[in-house]
Amino acid sequence: MVGEVLVVGDNVMGAGNQQESLDAEWVVGFVDGEGCFHVGINRQPKMSTNWQVLPEFRIVQHKDDEQILTKLQSFFGCGQVTVNNGDRKELRIRGLNNLSKIVNFFEHHPLKTKKQYSFEKFAKIASLMQQGKHLTKDGLVKIAKLALQMNRNKNVSASRILRDSTPDA
Amino acid sequence: MVGEVLVVGDNVMGAGNQQESLDAEWVVGFVDGEGCFHVGINRQPKMSTNWQVLPEFRIVQHKDDEQILTKLQSFFGCGQVTVNNGDRKELRIRGLNNLSKIVNFFEHHPLKTKKQYSFEKFAKIASLMQQGKHLTKDGLVKIAKLALQMNRNKNVSASRILRDSTPDA
Repeated sequence: MVGEVLVVGDNVMGAGNQQESLDAEWVVGFVDGEGCFHVGINRQPKMSTNWQVLPEFRIVQHKDDEQILTKLQSFFGCGQVTVNNGDRKELRIRGLNNLSKIVNFFEHHPLKTKKQYSFEKFAKIASLMQQGKHLTKDGLVKIAKLALQMNRNKNVSASRILRDSTPDA
Repeated sequence: MVGEVLVVGDNVMGAGNQQESLDAEWVVGFVDGEGCFHVGINRQPKMSTNWQVLPEFRIVQHKDDEQILTKLQSFFGCGQVTVNNGDRKELRIRGLNNLSKIVNFFEHHPLKTKKQYSFEKFAKIASLMQQGKHLTKDGLVKIAKLALQMNRNKNVSASRILRDSTPDA
């Protein structure tokens, strides 16, 4: 896993990477400014816990800078460039396999702003999900606690999950 | 001049640079996301042209990330970290001597987003000002034209200067 990620980090991706490649440190600086680690938690009665956890890494730019999103997509080797809102586009990376590449890259190339703190919570959530913990009540509570520590936004669903759960001893 | 800038770019600044130094490519990535090249043009009857030109480079962050502004200040070797608005802080770099360091750094480490285009106009304006052109009517008109091409914002003063000037032949 680590070997695979170092390849991504050094951007030696071979076929399909015909664009000018990005420097790993440039990517870290740009993501320190523009990247967002987000964990959505949505009501989903079909899930055993009634909640679906949707981690996502995204970078939003004005459509004039769509080219940089495409370069980042090539750099990471995953994700979709799509409309965000109005004249804004986003690179959106979902799915545990794709997100493991992102997590491993930033584990080897730490962010320098407070975003590093959100990233660490995000990485823990992704790890719990890879172990299937989001499908259990205890795991979901752990994830909700971590999600509440991310960013400066309130995570209403995470708050609700914690309120509804039995407090830890 | 170039030698001086390469020193800044490689961040071999010696005394006073006790913090962990920033990587030049990280700085480019972060500025691609968060930096702003701005040229203010203000009514100033004391000036021979009636207008004062105030170029400025700034980076705004939430106050939680003031440490990164201080690191950037050390990296560039100039600027002031001050309140921007509410809970936001900014690194603000003004003055032609300081801005020549910024211009030279980004000439050697190009931006990758559309901000490069604004930077190029900004660099031309700084160069014109170093030649004292902003103190002449013709020079001011050149600067106004360049300022209007920067960013996506309208520059009301620049528009007014062009409207009031005789069109070029």
